[in-house]
Parts: sequence; C-alpha cells; structure tokens
Amino acid sequence: MKNTVFVLAPDSFKGSMTAKQVCDAMERGIKKVLPDAECIKVPMADGGEGTMQSLVDATNGTIYELDVAGPLGKQVKARYGIMGTGKTAAIEMASASGIHFVDENTKNPLITTTYGTGQLVKACLDRGVHKIILGIGGSATNDGGAGFARALGAKFLDKEGRELPPGGAALAGLDRIDISSLDPRLKDVDIEVACDVTNPLCGKTGASFVFGPQKGATAEMVTILDNALDHYAGIISRDLKKEVKDVPGAGAAGGLGAGLLAFTNARLEKGVDIIINYTNLKEIVQKADIVFTGEGGIDFQTQYGKTPFGVARTAKAADKTVIAIAGYIGEGIEQLYSIGFDAILGIVPGAMTIGEAMRKGAENVERTVENIVRLLNSRSKI
Amino acid sequence: MKNTVFVLAPDSFKGSMTAKQVCDAMERGIKKVLPDAECIKVPMADGGEGTMQSLVDATNGTIYELDVAGPLGKQVKARYGIMGTGKTAAIEMASASGIHFVDENTKNPLITTTYGTGQLVKACLDRGVHKIILGIGGSATNDGGAGFARALGAKFLDKEGRELPPGGAALAGLDRIDISSLDPRLKDVDIEVACDVTNPLCGKTGASFVFGPQKGATAEMVTILDNALDHYAGIISRDLKKEVKDVPGAGAAGGLGAGLLAFTNARLEKGVDIIINYTNLKEIVQKADIVFTGEGGIDFQTQYGKTPFGVARTAKAADKTVIAIAGYIGEGIEQLYSIGFDAILGIVPGAMTIGEAMRKGAENVERTVENIVRLLNSRSKI
Repeated sequence: MKNTVFVLAPDSFKGSMTAKQVCDAMERGIKKVLPDAECIKVPMADGGEGTMQSLVDATNGTIYELDVAGPLGKQVKARYGIMGTGKTAAIEMASASGIHFVDENTKNPLITTTYGTGQLVKACLDRGVHKIILGIGGSATNDGGAGFARALGAKFLDKEGRELPPGGAALAGLDRIDISSLDPRLKDVDIEVACDVTNPLCGKTGASFVFGPQKGATAEMVTILDNALDHYAGIISRDLKKEVKDVPGAGAAGGLGAGLLAFTNARLEKGVDIIINYTNLKEIVQKADIVFTGEGGIDFQTQYGKTPFGVARTAKAADKTVIAIAGYIGEGIEQLYSIGFDAILGIVPGAMTIGEAMRKGAENVERTVENIVRLLNSRSKI
Repeated sequence: MKNTVFVLAPDSFKGSMTAKQVCDAMERGIKKVLPDAECIKVPMADGGEGTMQSLVDATNGTIYELDVAGPLGKQVKARYGIMGTGKTAAIEMASASGIHFVDENTKNPLITTTYGTGQLVKACLDRGVHKIILGIGGSATNDGGAGFARALGAKFLDKEGRELPPGGAALAGLDRIDISSLDPRLKDVDIEVACDVTNPLCGKTGASFVFGPQKGATAEMVTILDNALDHYAGIISRDLKKEVKDVPGAGAAGGLGAGLLAFTNARLEKGVDIIINYTNLKEIVQKADIVFTGEGGIDFQTQYGKTPFGVARTAKAADKTVIAIAGYIGEGIEQLYSIGFDAILGIVPGAMTIGEAMRKGAENVERTVENIVRLLNSRSKI
C-alpha cells in the first residue's frame, strides 16, 4: 500500500506562528501516527500580513532589509523577499508604508506617502527579478500611489513646474505628470498585486470615503482627498492615456491600486489566487490524500478570500478531503461546510488567555493534527 | 445499509453540564451530519460529584431533598436519588457531610460527623430500595463512619454508658458499641460504595494522616484522630467481630469506608466500575459503531479510575472505536492512546475565560462532535 500523502497548506497563525511553522507542527502531528506518511508543505498566504514570509519559506528564499521612507517621510526599516529562484520578489506595502508607522497623533492621510513602497520595488528591480508579488493591505496612505511612482522616477509637477509635496492632498495642485525618467524596467516586470477589494478610486465607494477614515481622515479631509484623487485620475488619463478611475481595485490601499495600473503593467488579483498560482497548489493537491489548511481564526468571513477557503476550493476541485484547524473558531463556520471544508476544529486545549494560546500554538497544532489523523486512521467507517 | 450507532457515555463537565446535557449536545452534533444515526445515551459518572445526577438521568429517576445534620451538626439540605426502577438509590455523601459545608474558620475534623449520610441511607431504606450506590468523595469528616452508624441505630458508649459526642476524636473514649437497635434493613440492602482509594483506616497511609490535613487537621490533630480510629477499630473487632482496619479503602472518606464495612454489608468498588455495571454499559457498547466519552478535563490522570478511561476500557474490550472530548486537555494525554482512546479532542473554540468556556459548553460539545463525525464521514481512508 502506498503511504498516505498529506498536503499541508495553512496560512500563518498571526501573532503565534508563521505558515511554515504551522506546516512543521502539522507534520510532527501526522508523523506521530503515520511515520511513513508523505507531507508536502506549502506555506500559504492571502496577500495580507505574512505573505512575504510564507513565499520566502515556500521557496527557500531570502529576506532583505532596507531603509526606506516611511509614510510620513521618516526613514523606517522595511523588508522584502526574493524567492529561491531569484526571479520573483515579494513585497508587503505595509512594510514600508503601513498604518503601524503612524499613531493617533501623527496619522494624517493628507500627507502620507507610498514613496517607501516604490523604493522597495526599485530594490527588487535592482536584484533583477522578473516578477513581483505585491501585497497592499494595511496602508497608512491615500496618495493614489503618486509617492510610489515618484520613487521610480515619475515627476508630479504643479503649474510652475515644481514637484508637488508628498501626500494625496497635494495632488489637487497637480498640473502634469512627467514619466520621461520613469524606471524603464517597470515595462518588463510582471507585477501581481494581491488585492481583495473592488473599490474604485473615487466617489462614495472610493478610496477616500471608504478607507480614509480608518487612516485618520475627518469628513472634511475625505472630501479634500476624494477631489484630489479625482483630479489626479484626470491628469493620468490625459498624460498617460490610462483610464484607471473606475477599475475595480483602483481604490485599494489609498489608491495605490490606481497608481500601479497607471505606472506599471500590474494586474490586480485576489491575493490567495496569486499565492495558489505561484505555489502550484493546484498541481500539488492532485497528489494528496488529505489536505490540511488553517489560519489563526476561521469564521464565516473565511469564505471572502481567506487562505483556508482558497485552499479548500482548490482541493475540492481535485475532489480531496479538506480539514481546517484554527486557533479561534468564530461564528458561522457551518456556512463553510458546503463550500469545501470537510471538518473544522479548534486547537486550543482549554480556557486560557490569548497570550498563552499563542505561545503554545505549535504544540496545540501538533496535538490536534495528531488526533485528527488518529481519528482518520481508526478502523471505523460510518 | 444500517444506520450508524453511537453510544454516548460521557461524565458531567463539572461546572458546565450534567452528563445528560453532554449526551444531548453530542446527539445534536451527530444528527446534524447523520440525521438517521442511532444515539444511545448513557450518562456516566465515576462515583464523584455528579454521580447521583447521572444515575437519575440515566434511569428517569427522581431526586429528593432532605434536611439532615451537616458535618458540624447544623441542619443542611441534602439530596438523594431514587432510580426509575424504584429499587436502587444513589447517594453522594458530600451532599450531607461534604467539605463545602465547612470553611477556614469552622473546619474541624475532630468533631465533624457522617451522621447526615446515615440519615440519607435511612431515607432510602424507608423508600424500600434494595440497593444503594454510595459515592463517598469530598467529605469533611474523620469519624470512621461512627456518625453514619449512629444515625442508623448504633450506639457508641463510654465507660459510664453514655453516648459519645460526635466526631472522630471522641472515639478515643469509646468503651463499647451497642448494635441492638441497628436498623435491621441494613442486613438486606446491597450497598455498593464507590471508592477509588485503597488507604487503610490507620497509620501513615491511613485516613487521618493522608486526608486529615485537607480537612483542617493539624499535625497534633492527625495523631489524636489516628489513635482514636485505631482504638475504634479495636472495639469493632471485639464487639462486632469484624476486622476492618487494614481493608483497602477502610480509610476512605475519613474512615467511613471502615464504618460501612463494620455496620453494613457494603462492598467497596471502583466508582466507575459500579456505574458501568449498573448502566449495563458492557452490553450497550456491543451495539455501537462508535463510542463517545468525555469529561470536563482529561489528562494523564484520567487513567486512574476516571470515567472516560472506564468507558474506553469497556468499549475496547468490545473492539470499538473510542473518541473522547474534553473542556480541557491537560498534560500527558499521549499515555492514553495505547490504553483505549482512539482520539482525544478539546472543545473550546479559542482563547477565553473558564467562565465563558463553561457557559458555552453545550454549543462547544455540539460543534466539536459534529466536526468529528464529519471527519469520520469523509470519504478518506488512510
């Protein structure tokens, strides 16, 4: 009889374990029951926090640190990953331009910039990659990606031909865009943007109205920013011949979606689909007898683009059994049973603090997976 | 194909659910996956807290309340159960003579009495039962069961022929025991005592030395009590012609074990074995495809006479799959896999307080069992 093949494709358990660490703990649990089982470990992500780490881990890649401009212009330490192949990079924009770099007193989406994210992309181009996977969650910015483009050579000029100051509000004074110095390598690099929202750039469902307030925008600031981005889109249309304003996802990450569409050949895709594609998960699950996935928390929202759902859908397309585990089982998991999840089980062994549950994440995964495999391995068929 | 048969034999989840409530929640979880499954519910116990409730629930019996003397002589409300058959009673001595009736200021094993427990037995005899299942955990007493016997008509007299005051210390002055008025029905009633300890009445491993301190005995009091019980055993030997001192379990419940052996035909047995026997679990599991058990907490100690182990051993003797769930999974459960447990899984959905975990016990059992059955029901065989 051939050995059982398990495909282990969890996301990270945020605050507790990287996806790779979850894979390792799952494998230990399995091998306690079936020492000869084959475990194919595919650390997953959905484009959010942990994506770069998962991809680097999945490919034996390397993480680099770089000083870049933070959202307020101050230098921050950011990171990017180069896959083991050397041909693909992974960037999380939050690493350079994230909301965690501002606080109650300093948050100001009128002036925050995506310049640092552009610097990260430039660093990846300098390393000769052909492809960049870019996660754009958690931004502090509302600048339409102008800062990003500026870091790569675009010039945003006012009527007097002076460069605009950073930030979305300044775009109201944009007279023209000069891309004569734009990094020519952007033409050839394949940028896949992990984007799970479909908001347009402007209007009531646009970047400023929907996401501005959580970045610190007052009602007045929202209007200023929305008008500025609308003006910005008009100049892009005129100078770059690109219509980005109403593209679904243009409003993601304070309009970085629009900027990426305007200044690069980026494609906006669902984060988990990018990762599934990049990791060849579809082919890998063909070999599986059982597919394990999981995430820190699983609830009804998991079906809206979270990693476990992407994995379950992929595995079910190949008619595989899918088992999910989570540090926290929330409301409405019964909605998930019919869309790909054979079973969903929690891992914490009893009442405890979140801190303790997180500290013991690995042993909890290991013990739970061990017992799930013990169940599957029991003689009973029902 | 015949419907799957589940035998549901959990203990109570202390502070959260009775064993019957656990059975009901398990059944709901199973029926969500297999609406036609047969669920045979056998609320279990191990002789400890919850035993009377489980037995009453298992037989559609009745619980009665009675005012009896508490361990310090003050009236307390105690309870006993009469099984649905009307022929068997269940008593937990703690209901009348339990440690919860004393506090830091009033605890005093020199004077605490098992008189109330005797009153409960008398009430059961008055109801015409042929058998009494008596759980003796959680006592506040160290009186060798003298109070118990006195409630049933025995007289403990000093040299002047006066009755002794209550409590273990007074037994030092015992001159003779008069059982001429002892309730004659004690001869015919079958008393099964759920007793999981093997301590003798006296000495370093006896009632006073081992259990006295947790009932409030100082080192000095321990010696007084041990000497008194030793003297008491001597009088029993002389007047009743029974040698109880060194019988394993004589030292249980402050020597109530010895008193039961001296004044009744009681047999001391492992609690869970009494319940397994009384509930016919051995026959019932024959019909099972899957046996579920569980308890509030499961850890390495579960193998020392706890309900889930008794159930697992019984089910394994019939070669059945045994799955245990628990509100808290503690240390060393890997010791249980080889002795009857196919799998052991926790039920809490994530980090939370003990209070919240207990309040949501039923939904946590239901969801976990549902997912276990979903796993068993998945196509995968490994």
